[in-house]
Amino acid sequence: MAFGQLSLATGNQEYADIAKKTFEIILSKVDNPKGKWNKLHPGTRNLKNFALPMILCNLALEIEHLLPAGYLEQTMETCIHEVMDVFCRPELGGIIVENVDVDGNLVDCFEGRQVTPGHAIEAMWFIMDLGKRLNRQDLIEKAKDITLTMISYGWDKEYGGIYYFMDRNGCPPQQLEWDQKLWWVHIETLISLLKGYQLTEDKKCLEWFEKVHDYAWTHFKDSKYPEWFGYLNRRGEVLLPLKGGKWKGCFHVPRGLYQCWKVLEQL
Amino acid sequence: MAFGQLSLATGNQEYADIAKKTFEIILSKVDNPKGKWNKLHPGTRNLKNFALPMILCNLALEIEHLLPAGYLEQTMETCIHEVMDVFCRPELGGIIVENVDVDGNLVDCFEGRQVTPGHAIEAMWFIMDLGKRLNRQDLIEKAKDITLTMISYGWDKEYGGIYYFMDRNGCPPQQLEWDQKLWWVHIETLISLLKGYQLTEDKKCLEWFEKVHDYAWTHFKDSKYPEWFGYLNRRGEVLLPLKGGKWKGCFHVPRGLYQCWKVLEQL
Repeated sequence: MAFGQLSLATGNQEYADIAKKTFEIILSKVDNPKGKWNKLHPGTRNLKNFALPMILCNLALEIEHLLPAGYLEQTMETCIHEVMDVFCRPELGGIIVENVDVDGNLVDCFEGRQVTPGHAIEAMWFIMDLGKRLNRQDLIEKAKDITLTMISYGWDKEYGGIYYFMDRNGCPPQQLEWDQKLWWVHIETLISLLKGYQLTEDKKCLEWFEKVHDYAWTHFKDSKYPEWFGYLNRRGEVLLPLKGGKWKGCFHVPRGLYQCWKVLEQL
Repeated sequence: MAFGQLSLATGNQEYADIAKKTFEIILSKVDNPKGKWNKLHPGTRNLKNFALPMILCNLALEIEHLLPAGYLEQTMETCIHEVMDVFCRPELGGIIVENVDVDGNLVDCFEGRQVTPGHAIEAMWFIMDLGKRLNRQDLIEKAKDITLTMISYGWDKEYGGIYYFMDRNGCPPQQLEWDQKLWWVHIETLISLLKGYQLTEDKKCLEWFEKVHDYAWTHFKDSKYPEWFGYLNRRGEVLLPLKGGKWKGCFHVPRGLYQCWKVLEQL
């Protein structure tokens, strides 16, 4: 993604080649991302995961200038179909699950019941960007609706903030950190809500934006040293005071603030 | 371990062979347990972990009848040395760290600063059993002292219970679940405290035993359906109501209650 944009900024063909090659490698691994390191035993409950089509929605637009038009369009259509028709489930009230079987069916196991609200909501602003690019207002409306569904589903009614992991049947999730409130979940949600409001003028997006915005700036901001905390416990108390670590890099907060700023400029 | 005891109970040579072979495979991997799947890049911060010598202390005694005497003694001595002289650090007040470098030095990184009180305390009743077997009261006294040091270090002074993970410099641990209270930590601690009291008559073991016992039975016991909960949050509220899962099997609670019962019978 970075090399794609770097090639655009510098005109350097070497960067373009790296980006294109990487994209091809990713696509070649769609059916089995971990290759022989896949821990699943062949033939026993083969699952496919939401992460890949979700991230490809974003990646495709970032390296659009490097791809042949037909190829790009086909990739975008496939990703939109997977995200909106396969992982989003009308029979569950329109929530997005993290894993389905290879034929696209719901599965009743830890992975198959897993819901990750932040992941689903982040995907929705990728879809809205695609909707703009493809001039498909229906897609934008649908992505906005899913955003509102997921935030209402994922919001902790007792302590505020959005859960990290949930189980669609209300069973205990496998992840011990399920009830923690994470920085990236909240900043990505702000983007989706703001884009949703900008593109559909649905006031519910603005109401939720203010609610999440207040939560995020009250809880994640370190008033002493700038940069957000990454990890709060369920009650919103700082769980780990580190500003950077194994999973919290300098990615989500600047991207999120930049995206929000750009949308707010146009409102 | 199970096959070793099964061979003892049944006299079946096949079980004995499986146990012996497995033990040899484990020992052959001491220096690089994950083989080519080791994620560490060769030459960059090679660490050795407390888990292997710690568990071998216990395993050696369980399959003692299957091993040549000289070989067994050498294994026991090596494990005792690693646990008590390499991972236990006098310069840190006698706490046990989870990782040191291959030369046995402290390392200043997430892994090198990691302390897992439950792990260290569990190892101490393995050492006490070895001390009994080898008729070494000095070893038993030392293991009892480390038990008391670790529980005092790992006890949450605000909400009670023993932390899952800590950082010896007070930095944020890498593990998001660091402040949770886990069933196995508490039941293994009860064993070490009770054996410590039985073998040294140190009253401090009994005082701590009552404190941990009260915490465990008040917080982990499901008063409606028998069997303990596995995961509490820092405040001692049930975080995951499941009784069994990916990491909570039927191992620690029965073993712990059995060990405590056997010691209490002799008191």
